[in-house]
Order: sequence, then structure tokens, then C-alpha cells
Amino acid sequence: MTGRKRIRVRWRASAELTGDVLTYLTVPLAFPLLVALYYRESPVPFLVAIAAALALGSGFRSLRDPDVDLGPREAFLAVASIWFLVAAVGAIPFFVAGTGVLANPVNAMFESMSGLTTTGATVLVDFAVHPRGVMMWRQVLQWLGGLGILILATAVLSEIGVGGAQLMESETQTRDVSKLTPKISQTARLIWGIYVGLTVLAAATYLALGFVVDPQMDLYNAIAHAFTSVSTAGFSPEPRSIGAFHPAIQWAVIPFMVVGSTSFVLLYFAIDGEPMRLIKNDEFHFYLGSMGVFAAIVALVLALDPGSPFGPEATVRHAAFNVASMVTTTGYASADFDLWAPGAKHLLFMGMFLGGMVGSTTCSIKSLRWMVALKAFKRDLFTSIHPESIRPVRNSGAPVDEETIRDIYAYILLSVVIFFIFTVFVVVDAERGDARVNEFEAMGAAASTFLNIGPAFGAAGPYGTYASFPLSTRAVMIVLMWIGRIEIIPVLVLFTKSFWTS
Amino acid sequence: MTGRKRIRVRWRASAELTGDVLTYLTVPLAFPLLVALYYRESPVPFLVAIAAALALGSGFRSLRDPDVDLGPREAFLAVASIWFLVAAVGAIPFFVAGTGVLANPVNAMFESMSGLTTTGATVLVDFAVHPRGVMMWRQVLQWLGGLGILILATAVLSEIGVGGAQLMESETQTRDVSKLTPKISQTARLIWGIYVGLTVLAAATYLALGFVVDPQMDLYNAIAHAFTSVSTAGFSPEPRSIGAFHPAIQWAVIPFMVVGSTSFVLLYFAIDGEPMRLIKNDEFHFYLGSMGVFAAIVALVLALDPGSPFGPEATVRHAAFNVASMVTTTGYASADFDLWAPGAKHLLFMGMFLGGMVGSTTCSIKSLRWMVALKAFKRDLFTSIHPESIRPVRNSGAPVDEETIRDIYAYILLSVVIFFIFTVFVVVDAERGDARVNEFEAMGAAASTFLNIGPAFGAAGPYGTYASFPLSTRAVMIVLMWIGRIEIIPVLVLFTKSFWTS
Ligand SMILES: [K+]
Ligand SMILES: [K+]
Repeated sequence: MTGRKRIRVRWRASAELTGDVLTYLTVPLAFPLLVALYYRESPVPFLVAIAAALALGSGFRSLRDPDVDLGPREAFLAVASIWFLVAAVGAIPFFVAGTGVLANPVNAMFESMSGLTTTGATVLVDFAVHPRGVMMWRQVLQWLGGLGILILATAVLSEIGVGGAQLMESETQTRDVSKLTPKISQTARLIWGIYVGLTVLAAATYLALGFVVDPQMDLYNAIAHAFTSVSTAGFSPEPRSIGAFHPAIQWAVIPFMVVGSTSFVLLYFAIDGEPMRLIKNDEFHFYLGSMGVFAAIVALVLALDPGSPFGPEATVRHAAFNVASMVTTTGYASADFDLWAPGAKHLLFMGMFLGGMVGSTTCSIKSLRWMVALKAFKRDLFTSIHPESIRPVRNSGAPVDEETIRDIYAYILLSVVIFFIFTVFVVVDAERGDARVNEFEAMGAAASTFLNIGPAFGAAGPYGTYASFPLSTRAVMIVLMWIGRIEIIPVLVLFTKSFWTS
Repeated sequence: MTGRKRIRVRWRASAELTGDVLTYLTVPLAFPLLVALYYRESPVPFLVAIAAALALGSGFRSLRDPDVDLGPREAFLAVASIWFLVAAVGAIPFFVAGTGVLANPVNAMFESMSGLTTTGATVLVDFAVHPRGVMMWRQVLQWLGGLGILILATAVLSEIGVGGAQLMESETQTRDVSKLTPKISQTARLIWGIYVGLTVLAAATYLALGFVVDPQMDLYNAIAHAFTSVSTAGFSPEPRSIGAFHPAIQWAVIPFMVVGSTSFVLLYFAIDGEPMRLIKNDEFHFYLGSMGVFAAIVALVLALDPGSPFGPEATVRHAAFNVASMVTTTGYASADFDLWAPGAKHLLFMGMFLGGMVGSTTCSIKSLRWMVALKAFKRDLFTSIHPESIRPVRNSGAPVDEETIRDIYAYILLSVVIFFIFTVFVVVDAERGDARVNEFEAMGAAASTFLNIGPAFGAAGPYGTYASFPLSTRAVMIVLMWIGRIEIIPVLVLFTKSFWTS
């Protein structure tokens, strides 16, 4: 035994993968570059970012060791570093453009991390001061983030199993997909295809509707919102978000958010001629059901509120839209729900914790975990009366093993505890920074960043800005968005000693 | 099969036990009766309550069926009904006296339930209007509640196993005690003896100190505060709580709160010549350690706050006192901590969720559950890197089974979810009732009643009153205190169909 334990993580394998991804980042950076050139804006922000991506990418690639493979630890390390470094490179165009609040590097990093993690929280104050290329880059980052999370959820996390998320994916679905497509890269490609297809469909739908009812929905806006609908990400170049557009367009956005939060593995089966696997899926029912119940109650609260400005159609539309936006974790707004009755606001807040289906672009805790936890809890109540009985918890007919149930409980509890401590930090840090943040705003902002929703309440409401929080709070929010998006565990394990040495 | 399923719970067994307890209630009711007679106050409130206890008690006893025993279901039903009905009878003296706010039956029930559940939240506004006998009854109820929970924790819950609480009790400790004392009633008697002994010691200590430093701590106050220290209950006849007394008395109260939240089974062993079983106990370390860390941080926050009125001794005393009060779930206050810096207030708030040791009079989630959850989570992080390894979680050397870990996760999660929904209810209900309750006050009041702490923040702060909440909120708080005190599950199972029929 030597005095110092040797590092046992084959970090060169993680570095190589990180380098690959950074190099690929040059391709999507070309899109806002073209937008900038089209609008005769400076291409410099994107050229600098492309140069940085190439330099960093080849630097990391040069660390590779051809003899090592990616094990669970190397995958965790790669996931954590990829999400962080891509966000850092993604911040370069914002910082180099340096318009408005983005001249501050923390703000540039906030906007980039919020983009890549598909959060959609913004520090922008005046949207009009930023070039159109830069404004488009926010949406491109979100679309990339959605794609990345799909690959992560179906290829990486499913293999190493985080917080019970392996349940549906690795045990039943991905394995079936793998039969059809022996290589992970092929699975990813199928999902990529559905994702691209839905994005194109969204852009075409928005553009067509814009042509008929709302000229403000032009090609630029159609593409920008298509990027952030299916990715359940929520950035909009419009300060009033989807509320800036015609009601027909608001209705049209809802199904794209909902589909974006539906399991892409089940969507693949549905397209491949097995729609019943989606239609009869327990999690799908739970997801649609909880969203429906929340929307119905919000609509009721709005309808009963004498202060509500909405007629019947608008009541139903805004309830359905904003509940779907929260539950799918998109974070668009069709109205300033910060002005709604407390009951409606609190329901939207609680909806943040639900999340869509595992294996989609959704964030937050996710329907599968809540559903299994609820079923398991009902089972536990039963066995507390009948201690001798054995009753497995079932998910779409298949028994869920007890270890997975334990992991799901632990994951939800961990999320809630982090949210809690983060809320306290936001309040105390705001007080220290002389910002006026009440507890509900703090809870909303903590949940909205950590669970990757986007808007919150009060100053950080749907039509507000996170620039109202102290810089130190924003810096911590960057970290929490990062941790939340990659499901906590890949970051937490990096801080255990056994990760590096045993 | 008949159309209607037959009720399978042997509810007559539960009714008999409930009737016994109601009949026994006449004994403690005699104490405030004597106090009332001594101070020449009306004895009627207590005579009415004694008559009601006897009538209800014999009514329930008449339902008995000598052939049936108490199974898990009958125990759940008995626990839920005993805690509710004793609180109802306990409310009679308050309502019959009818002084001040207590003329309202919801307030009388609130005060009684808050007493019996050792919560210590009060709806009283002006303490001076109430007779001394009635004011003493509050403390007697708390002392009874502490005794009841000790018997419940060591004799009943340990047998049927709720939320992982069976872990330490039934598996290691109670079984050992049972070897010495084959009958449950004898276990209860040993614990009763320690509890009475500690109460007498507390009264003697307070009285002696009062004699030396503070004449306000007379026999009445010494007995009243002894009743609510060891029971970690927190009612005080003084509106300023322990803050009304000399600093030396404040210091003296701390150890009694701490011991009241220490496992009485381990205290029994310590008295019986095996102190190492307490001193080397993992949960004991976790309990003292977390309390120490919280107190140190609160002291630091107070010391660094330029607005703090406290000198060095007072800073340490108030930090130690109020953290111990929150963590042990006593709910006394030595100062109006509602006026403290946000960091200190939030730490006290977070301390509410900890709780003392299993097998004591403590409330809230309890150290054992947090400790096992934390250990299990660290283990889970390890196995996420080393999926092949098997590592049991250990509690004081003994492996904890995985089912218990799952139950503990579930219990903590359930508590947090109920707290959350309850907070939202408090906010929305206050808004509806035109009360001014901000989110932090609502969170504090929800946690403080559901986790049976006592004071909260804002209007319901340590020197405030729960009368500031709408009547409907107070009514729901009564239910939540009841559910929280008996560890949720005995009430929840009553609402499952299989409890009654299968
Ligand atoms: K989002
Ligand atoms: K208490």
C-alpha cells in the first residue's frame, strides 16, 4: 500500500468523449452565425466560440488513451464535464457580443446554462438590445440540450441507472429497441430522427398558422419556437413569450410541449406500428391524467376569481397552456400568471415538481417516479395492515423490484431536500444582497432553476427577469441548473472519495 | 360472496382500549381541579370534563368483546381514536371555562389537541384572562401526551412497525428490555418511572433555581414547566415562555429538553448500569451532533449580525436554547427569534424537521430516520459507482435491512409532501380569509403544527398566537397535529378500503 491512493477513474476516456462533443459543437454554432450574417450583424461572437470549441475540443481529444473504455464512473465524469463545458463555450457568443446584461460573464454563463439545460430562465432585461443572431443562439442551445438529454436518457443513464430512471428504459424499452438496433449509436439516431421530425413539424405548423392569423409569427419566430417547444425548453425571443402570439398559435404549441415530454422510445414504437404500447402505458396515463387534473383545477380557480380578466375560452386556454408548460417543464407563458389568484399560482408551482415522462426531453422529477412512489406507498399501507402478504408494485404490468422503489423514494427525497436548502439560500442571499425576495418568489425561483422549468413568480415571473437576484444567487443557480439537468447523481458522486480512488 | 363485504376489523377491541384510556383520564383531570380549588376558581370546567370522561369511557367499554385481541389494525384504530377523543375531552375544561378566545369550540379543541400532541402551538391572545386551573390543564395535557407517546413508541408502534420506526426499538432495544420484562405493561412501567423521575427532577431544579435567582419561578411555574420540558411539549403559562425567566433558568431548561428527546430505552439501560449503550449509540451521536452544528451556526449568524441585541453569553445561550427547543421539538422560546436575522430564522425552521431520538417524547421526523437515510444515500452513491458491490447500511453496528431503508425514505418523503401541500393550503386559505400570511409564516406554521413543534414565525411566532389564522385553517391544523403526532400511517390506513374489509 502506498501512502497516496492512486486515481482509479480512467478519466482519459471521459476527456476524449468531452473533446468529441466540444468539436461537434462547431456545427450548431454555424446556424446563429448564418443568422447573424443574414441580418448583417457581427459574426465575431460566433467565430470566437467556434475557435474556442475547436481548441478545447482538440485539447481534450489529445488526452485520449485508446486502450480504455467508458465504465459507469467515466460516463458520470463525462456527463458532468460535457454539460458544464458546452455551457461555458455556449456562453462565449453572449459574452463577446456583450450587449445589455450579457456583458457580465456570470449573466452570459447563466443564459447559456439555462439554455443548454433546457431551463429557459433568463437574465435578459431589455430583449431589443440584443442582435438577432445572439437571440437565436439561445434557442439553438436549448434544442441541443434537448437532443443531448434524449441521448443521455436513452443511451447513457439507462445503462448506469440513476435514481430509478433505469426502470422503464433499460428493463423493458431500450432493451427492445436494442434488439432492433444493436448499437447504442443507432438507438440515438432513431430518437434523433423523431426529435428532428417533430421540430420540423412544429416550425411548419407555427409558420403556417402565422401566415393565416398572425404575421408576427414569421420564419425567424417559427424556427426559434420550434427549437424550444419539442425540447420542452421554453426560451422565446419575445419578452411576452407565447403570450405575444394569436390564441390559435397558443393552442398549437400545447401538443408540441406535451409530445416533447412523452417517452421518445414509446413514440418510436407508436410510429413503428405499435401505438398500443404508448396508449396502454401506465406512466403515459399518469402523466396526462395529472396534467389534466391540474389544468381543470386552475381553470376552475380562474373561472371563480372575480378579478380574472379572461372569458371562457381564454380561461380554458391559459389554464391548459400554463399547466402544460409547467408540467412538461417547458416554461413558456401565455399570460402573466404571476398576477393570478394565489390558488392558481400555487398549483402552477406544484406542477413544476411533476415533470413529463422518462425518456423524453422533460426535466424535473418525472411522472414515472411519482407514479411508482405512489403505487409503492399504497402497497406499503396495505402491507402495514397485512404484514404477511407479498404484493409487488407493477408498472404497465411488469413488477418493479424493491431496490428500484427504494432508489425512486431516495431520488425524490433528495430533490426535495436540495430544493429546500436552495430556497433558504436564495432568501438569505437576497437579504444579504439587499434584494427584495419573498419566500414564495424564492421557492419558485429555486424550483424553477433546479428543476429546469424556467419562469417563477414575482420579479422572476414569466414576464420578469432573473437579473433581479443578486449576482451570487445567479452564480449558484448556474450550478443548480447543471446538477438538476443531469439528475444530480453524476455530480454528487464526483464529490465522494471512493469515486476517485476505490 | 355477498354484495357487501363485511367489516373485518375487530373494532370492539379498539373501543375497549379507548374506553379504558378515557376512564383513566379522570385521574389527571383531578390535578387542575385541585389547582382551581386552591386558587378559589370554579371547579365546574373540570367536573364537567370528568363526568364526560367517565360517561364516554364506560360507553366505549360497554362495546367490548372479551374474545378478541388487539391486532395491528385494531391497534391503529385504537391509537387514532384515543388521540382524537382524549383531545376532545381535554377541550371541555377550556370550552366550559370559556374565557377569552377559548369560548370558541374550535379554539378549545385547538388548544387541547396542541396540548395532547405535545405541539405547544397556542391560540391564546391574552394569557391573563384565563383561570390558573385552566392554564395548568394545558401543561398537564402535554405531560400526558408525552407519556402516551412514550408508551406508544415503545409498546405499540414498535410492534406494528411504522415508517421504519420499528428499526431500533423492536429489533434491538425493546426486545432486550422484553427479556427483562416479559409483559408490555412492565416495559411501559419502567419508562413511566424514568419519565416521572425526570419530571420531578426538573420541577425541583426549577424551583431551587427560582428560589436563588428568580422569585417568578414559584411552585406553580416550576411544576408547569417541568410538565412541558421532559415531554418536549412547550406550553408555558408565561406569554414570553422561558424568556420570562432568569438566564440561569434558561440554561437549566436545555438539558431537560435534550434528555426528553433522548431514547428512554437507552436511558433505562444507562440507569441500569450500561451507559455505554447510550454513549456509543449512533443515533445519539447524530442527534447531539446535528443539534450542536445548528446551534453553532445560529450563534455565528447572531454574532455577525450588527442588529443583534445580544452580548457574547446571551448569543450562545439564545442560540443553544432555541436550536435545542426546535430540534427536540419542545417549542419553548428564550427570546423572540422571529426578530432575528433571516439566516438564523431559517436555520431554526430547518431544525424543526430534525427531531430527537426514536423512543423518546420527541416529535417530527426524528434523528434515526435522517441518519439511516443519509447513510443509505451515501451507500447508494457508492453502489452507483460499484454496481457489483454489496454493502449493508449499519446502525450502531447492526445491519439495517433494505425494506426498513425503503420505509424510512417513504416516511420522510411523505412527511415533506404533506408539509408542502399543507403550506399551500395555509396560504390559500389565509388569502381567502383575508388574513395576511406570507409564505414563510405559512411554511413555519405548517411545519410547526404538523411536526408538533409549537411556535412558528410572523404572527404565529414564539410570542404570537395562532388566533391570527382563519378559523378554517385552525380547524385543519387540529387534524394535522393529530396525524403528525401518531406518525401519519395509523390515520392514513383508516382511509384505505382494505383496512376495513380484507
Ligand atoms: K424549461
Ligand atoms: K412541542
